[in-house]
Amino acid sequence: MIVEMRKGASSEEIDSVVQRAESLGLEVQLNLGTEKTVLAMLGGNTGQLSTDLFAVLPGVESVTRIMKPYKLASREFKADDSLVSIDGVEIGGKRIVVMAGPCAVENEKQLLETARVVKESGASVLRGGAFKPRTSPFSFQGLGKDGLELLAGAKKQFDILVITEVIDPHDVSLVSKYADILQVGSRNMQNFALLTNIGKSKCPVVLKRGFSCTVTEWLTAADYLLAEGNNQVILCERGIRTFEDSTRFSLDISAIPVIKRFSHLPVIVDPSHAAGHYSLVPAIARAAVAAGADGLLIEVHSNPKEALVDGLQSLTPSDFARLMEELRAIAKSIGRYI
Amino acid sequence: MIVEMRKGASSEEIDSVVQRAESLGLEVQLNLGTEKTVLAMLGGNTGQLSTDLFAVLPGVESVTRIMKPYKLASREFKADDSLVSIDGVEIGGKRIVVMAGPCAVENEKQLLETARVVKESGASVLRGGAFKPRTSPFSFQGLGKDGLELLAGAKKQFDILVITEVIDPHDVSLVSKYADILQVGSRNMQNFALLTNIGKSKCPVVLKRGFSCTVTEWLTAADYLLAEGNNQVILCERGIRTFEDSTRFSLDISAIPVIKRFSHLPVIVDPSHAAGHYSLVPAIARAAVAAGADGLLIEVHSNPKEALVDGLQSLTPSDFARLMEELRAIAKSIGRYI
Amino acid sequence: MIVEMRKGASSEEIDSVVQRAESLGLEVQLNLGTEKTVLAMLGGNTGQLSTDLFAVLPGVESVTRIMKPYKLASREFKADDSLVSIDGVEIGGKRIVVMAGPCAVENEKQLLETARVVKESGASVLRGGAFKPRTSPFSFQGLGKDGLELLAGAKKQFDILVITEVIDPHDVSLVSKYADILQVGSRNMQNFALLTNIGKSKCPVVLKRGFSCTVTEWLTAADYLLAEGNNQVILCERGIRTFEDSTRFSLDISAIPVIKRFSHLPVIVDPSHAAGHYSLVPAIARAAVAAGADGLLIEVHSNPKEALVDGLQSLTPSDFARLMEELRAIAKSIGRYI
Amino acid sequence: MIVEMRKGASSEEIDSVVQRAESLGLEVQLNLGTEKTVLAMLGGNTGQLSTDLFAVLPGVESVTRIMKPYKLASREFKADDSLVSIDGVEIGGKRIVVMAGPCAVENEKQLLETARVVKESGASVLRGGAFKPRTSPFSFQGLGKDGLELLAGAKKQFDILVITEVIDPHDVSLVSKYADILQVGSRNMQNFALLTNIGKSKCPVVLKRGFSCTVTEWLTAADYLLAEGNNQVILCERGIRTFEDSTRFSLDISAIPVIKRFSHLPVIVDPSHAAGHYSLVPAIARAAVAAGADGLLIEVHSNPKEALVDGLQSLTPSDFARLMEELRAIAKSIGRYI
Repeated sequence: MIVEMRKGASSEEIDSVVQRAESLGLEVQLNLGTEKTVLAMLGGNTGQLSTDLFAVLPGVESVTRIMKPYKLASREFKADDSLVSIDGVEIGGKRIVVMAGPCAVENEKQLLETARVVKESGASVLRGGAFKPRTSPFSFQGLGKDGLELLAGAKKQFDILVITEVIDPHDVSLVSKYADILQVGSRNMQNFALLTNIGKSKCPVVLKRGFSCTVTEWLTAADYLLAEGNNQVILCERGIRTFEDSTRFSLDISAIPVIKRFSHLPVIVDPSHAAGHYSLVPAIARAAVAAGADGLLIEVHSNPKEALVDGLQSLTPSDFARLMEELRAIAKSIGRYI
Repeated sequence: MIVEMRKGASSEEIDSVVQRAESLGLEVQLNLGTEKTVLAMLGGNTGQLSTDLFAVLPGVESVTRIMKPYKLASREFKADDSLVSIDGVEIGGKRIVVMAGPCAVENEKQLLETARVVKESGASVLRGGAFKPRTSPFSFQGLGKDGLELLAGAKKQFDILVITEVIDPHDVSLVSKYADILQVGSRNMQNFALLTNIGKSKCPVVLKRGFSCTVTEWLTAADYLLAEGNNQVILCERGIRTFEDSTRFSLDISAIPVIKRFSHLPVIVDPSHAAGHYSLVPAIARAAVAAGADGLLIEVHSNPKEALVDGLQSLTPSDFARLMEELRAIAKSIGRYI
Repeated sequence: MIVEMRKGASSEEIDSVVQRAESLGLEVQLNLGTEKTVLAMLGGNTGQLSTDLFAVLPGVESVTRIMKPYKLASREFKADDSLVSIDGVEIGGKRIVVMAGPCAVENEKQLLETARVVKESGASVLRGGAFKPRTSPFSFQGLGKDGLELLAGAKKQFDILVITEVIDPHDVSLVSKYADILQVGSRNMQNFALLTNIGKSKCPVVLKRGFSCTVTEWLTAADYLLAEGNNQVILCERGIRTFEDSTRFSLDISAIPVIKRFSHLPVIVDPSHAAGHYSLVPAIARAAVAAGADGLLIEVHSNPKEALVDGLQSLTPSDFARLMEELRAIAKSIGRYI
Repeated sequence: MIVEMRKGASSEEIDSVVQRAESLGLEVQLNLGTEKTVLAMLGGNTGQLSTDLFAVLPGVESVTRIMKPYKLASREFKADDSLVSIDGVEIGGKRIVVMAGPCAVENEKQLLETARVVKESGASVLRGGAFKPRTSPFSFQGLGKDGLELLAGAKKQFDILVITEVIDPHDVSLVSKYADILQVGSRNMQNFALLTNIGKSKCPVVLKRGFSCTVTEWLTAADYLLAEGNNQVILCERGIRTFEDSTRFSLDISAIPVIKRFSHLPVIVDPSHAAGHYSLVPAIARAAVAAGADGLLIEVHSNPKEALVDGLQSLTPSDFARLMEELRAIAKSIGRYI
C-alpha cells in the first residue's frame, strides 16, 4: 500500500500514518521526496486491508493498493492450473467441456428432447433452470423442485452431468442433491450469504461474473467459496453491461487471458446471454475457444419458437450440431479437443 | 409491441406473427409499408410480455416494446405521489427526510454518540448496518443480531426511527422486529427471493438502485415489493458504475426527475456511497435536494478516523451539522423544509 | 511512480529498473519487502512520464502513477480559483453566468427572438451553433459563415456576449472574429489539432467534456489550451455515456466538486444535452447550481416545435423565464447570485 | 417510426402528429388502441429523420425509430460483402490480412527492422504513426512529414503496403501521397470535417470505432465516407470503454458478427490497443480470427523495451512470428488463410 501525503504535510501527520501502519503490523518505508512525502507499507496482508484506514488520516492525499484484494483465487497463491473433476469429466484440462440445454426446464418432453440432442452432439453437461431469477414478478419463475426432478430424470436417462442455478441460500442443500454442478447467476455474484452456503456444501460450482463486476471483484467473490474449503470452482464469463445496445451484454473476451494470467481457476464462457440473439452465438463461441476458454455454456432448445424464456438466444438442435463441428476444428487447431 | 418484418417476408411468416399475437389475446394492426410490413400489437399487458415471443418467429427483423415492463410502480398505474408514513415521519411530502448514521454498527459507544449528534442536527432516522455485505470474505462482516439490539437501544434513547439492511431472505422477520425501515442494498436489488419476503412482511423499505441497473429495471424490482401488497416503498439512488474513477460511483442526478416523471414512489439519495470521499458529499447532497429528492441517506461517524468501514466517506458530526444548515437553506429556496 | 517487481525478480532485473529511472533523472527509493521488491520513483515530472517506460522491463509486475498526468490545470500548480473575464462578464466568481440560446442558428427571426427572451430573463451570453457536428451526413449541418453573421447581429442588437462552436482547426481565426467565446464540443475534446489552434488564438474557450472521458483526461486536454498560453479556459460538464437509457447522457454531478478540488478552472454545466428532454432540464440545472457550478449552458428556442435540431431538449421562453427564477432562489441560498 | 400518444391525448393532438408526418412525405397508419393511440410512420427515409420532430409535439409520450439511421453502410442497401482491393491485397475475402508495425515511427533503423520482420512473418501491410494524437501535450507527438518519408522508404524497400493515421482534415492530401491506406483514429471517428475530406480523397481508409460509440454510430460515421463516393472503407474494432480496468479497453468481440449481419463492409480488429499489455494480445487476436474478422492491426516493435510509445502492448518480432503461426492454424480451421 502506497500512501502519498499532501504537499506540505506536517511531521505530526506523517507520524500518525506511520503509527497506524505499525499498529496494523506493517513495515513502513519512508520516501522524503523533494515535493511530497510518500510512504510504502509492506506486509503480507495489505491486499485485504481497506485503503480508507490511511486515507482518513489528516494530511493524506491518496492511497494506492498494490496487492490484489483476492488471495485464494490468485495465481500467486497457487501457481498451477486448478482442475475440477466431476465423475470423470475434467474442467480445466486439454478437453473443452460443453454444457448445453434450455434456459428453463419447461416440461419433461422439452427437457428430454433437448438432453438427447445435446448429448448426441457431444455436450458433457446438461443445463436447465428450475429456479429462475426474473426481472419482472409477472414472468415465468421456473418449475422449482419439479424442475429438479425432471433434471434428475434426464441425467439418468442420458448419462449426462447436470448443472442448475440456485438462488436462495437455504436451497443449497436441496439443489445439490439433484445437481452435479451448482450455478451462481450473474445477479448473485455478490450474494455473500449464497456464496458462503455453497462454499460449505463443497459442491462443484460455476460462478458467473456479475454483469457489472470487474475481474478483481469476481476473483474476490471466488475467495468466498474457496475460503469455506470448496475448491471445485469454475468461473464463467457471460458479458458485461456497457453502452452498446446491439447485443444484450458485451462479452469481455479479454477476461479469458486476464483470468489465466492472474488466477489458477478454470474459466468457461456463456455466449448465449451475452449475445441475446442466436445468430451471434456461434461467432462468440468460436472466439471463446480460440481465446483459451476451458468450456462453454450454451442455450439449446428443442423448439426455440415455443420457448417460455430466452427463445431468441437459443440454438436449435441442428444449429448446435453444426456449431459443435466448428468448435472441434478450432479446438484441434490450438491443440485441444472437445 | 411493434414487430417489424424483414424486407420480403412472406405472407405465411406474417400470418404466423398474427396468430401468435391473437393466441396471446392481443389486438393486431397491420401496416403494409412500401418496403416492409410492420405490425402493432395492442393490449393491456404488452409491457409484461417478452419481446422474444415474436422475435423468434421466422421473417421477423426486430421487436420493439412501447409499454414499460413495470406496472405497479408506474405513474400510469397511480397518478398521485405516494406518501410513506412511519410513526409520524412522512417521506414523499413537503419535508425532506434525512437518514444519517454510521455505515456499520461497531459498538454501543460509537452508535449512541453518533445517534445523539444526528438527532441534534435534525435527522429523523438513524442508519447503521448490522449485517454487512462485503466484497471480501476477509473484511468485517457486521455485528449481526447484537447490532440490531444496539440499534433498538439507540432508537429508544433518542426517540428516532431506525433503518438497517437485510441481506438474507430468511432474516426478514428478525430484522423487521428491530428496524422501522428495511434497507435493500444495491447488490440485492435483483435478489428476488429477498424482495418477495420483504414484500410479504409489509415493513417499510428503502430499495437501493443496483449500481448497474437502469431506472426501468429498478422500477420493475419495486414491482416485486408492491405485488406482494407492500406499499411502503422508498427508492434510493446511490450512484451507478461508469468508467469515471475519481468517485466510487457516478451519482445519477437525472434519475430524480426521471423517477418523478414515471413513478409515484418517493425517492431519496445516498451521496456517501456515490462519492466515496467525505469532501464531495456536501455538494452532492445539496444537488440532490435541489433536484427534488424527498430525502437523504448520509454516512456520519462520531470519529471517522477510527471507523471500521467506509471511514473516508463518513462526515464528522460538525461537518454534518454544517451541511444540515446548507440543506435547510436550499430546501427553503424550493418551497420545502427539513 | 511506484514499480512493483514480480515475486522472485532477480537483482539484475531490479538493477535495470533503477538504471532506467536514473537515466530519466528520477530519484529511486528501494523497498525490499519480505515478499516483493517495490521501488518508488520520485521527481517533478513523473506525472508526464508513461508508465510503460517501466512496465516493459523484465521482472516488473505493475506500475502505478501517483502524480496526476495534468499539470497546468491542476490546483497544485495554481492554488487560487481562476477567473475568466470577458467584457465585464466574470466566470468563476460569485455570479453564476447563464449562457442560453438555440442549439443551431436557423434563421434571423429565430435567433433574434430567442436572443431577446434569454437576455430579458437574465442570460449574459447567447449560444447558437453555426457549424454543427452531426452524427449522420444526411442531417442539417448548420449555416456556417452565415450563422456567424447572424450571431454578430444579435450580439450588437441585444448587447450580449456570443458563444459558438468551432469544429475545424482551420476555422479558429474565422470564428474568433465573430464569437466572444469559442466552444469545443464533446466529440472534439481530444481533437488536439483544434485545441492547439484555439490555445494559440488566446480566445476565451468553453471546453466540453468528452462524453466518455474521465475528469483526468479532461484536465489533461485543458493543458493543451493552457500550454499555448491561453488562460481563458472554462470547463463544461455535459453528461457522460453510461448504460442508462432514460436520458441521452448521465450528467456527472460529482464532477463539479471533483473539479473544484483538483483544478483552479471555472466549471459550468450543460443540462440540456445530458437530459435530452426539456422536462428534465430544470431539475438538473438547479442541481448544478446547488453543487457549485459557475454557470449554465442551456438550450432555449423561441419555438421548439419547429426547431431543426434538438427541439425536444430546448426550453420555451416561458419555461426558461420560470427556471431563471428558481435558479436565482437557489443561488441566493448558497451565497451567490445570477 | 412509431409515435405513442399519451393516455387521453386529444384528437387535435393526434391530428397535429398526422399533419407533421404528411408534411414530411410519410404515410401514416393509425392504431386506436383501447388505452393509447399509436401511430406508425412509413416511408423510405424515416431512418434519417430525427425522432424529435414528433417528440416535441403536445400529447406525444414517446417516439421509437425502427429504421436504422445509417444507409449506405447497411446490408439492406448492398447485400453482398464489399471487397477493398489495394495493389493486389484484398480485404474482405478469404484471406485474412495482417497489418503490423510500431505504434509510432521513431527513426529509420526502428522502422526498417520492424518492417523486415513483419513482412517475413507474413504481414501484408506495415503500420506506423507519423502524426500521433496524444492525451497529454507533453508527450511525444510523432515525426510528422519526416515519418511519412520513412514509411515511403520502408514501403519501397520491402514491397509492402503502408497504413498511417491522419489527424488534421487539411493533411489528407499530404498523407494520402505517402500512404496506401489512411487510418482514422478512435478519437476522430466523429471528426466529420476529417471524414468528409477523406471521403473526397477516395483513398482506402480504416475507420476505427470510437471507444465510446455504438455500432450504429460507427456505421453512421462510415456513411460520411461513403456519401462522398469513397467505397474503400474498412472498419476496425479496437475496444470500447467500460468499467473494467484490467485491460485498457474492452474488445467488443460481438461487434464482428453484428457488423457482418448489418453491414457489407469488411471489419478488422486491433487487439493491441484493447489489451494494453502484450501478454493478452495473442488470445484476443486468435479470438478475432475465429469470430470472423477480415484482418488484424497489430503493434510490433523491433525492441519494445526502447519504444517511445505504447511499448507495453507491442509484440517482439519472435512473439509476432509465433502468433502468426497460431493464426494460420485457426484461419485454416474456419476455411480461410493468411
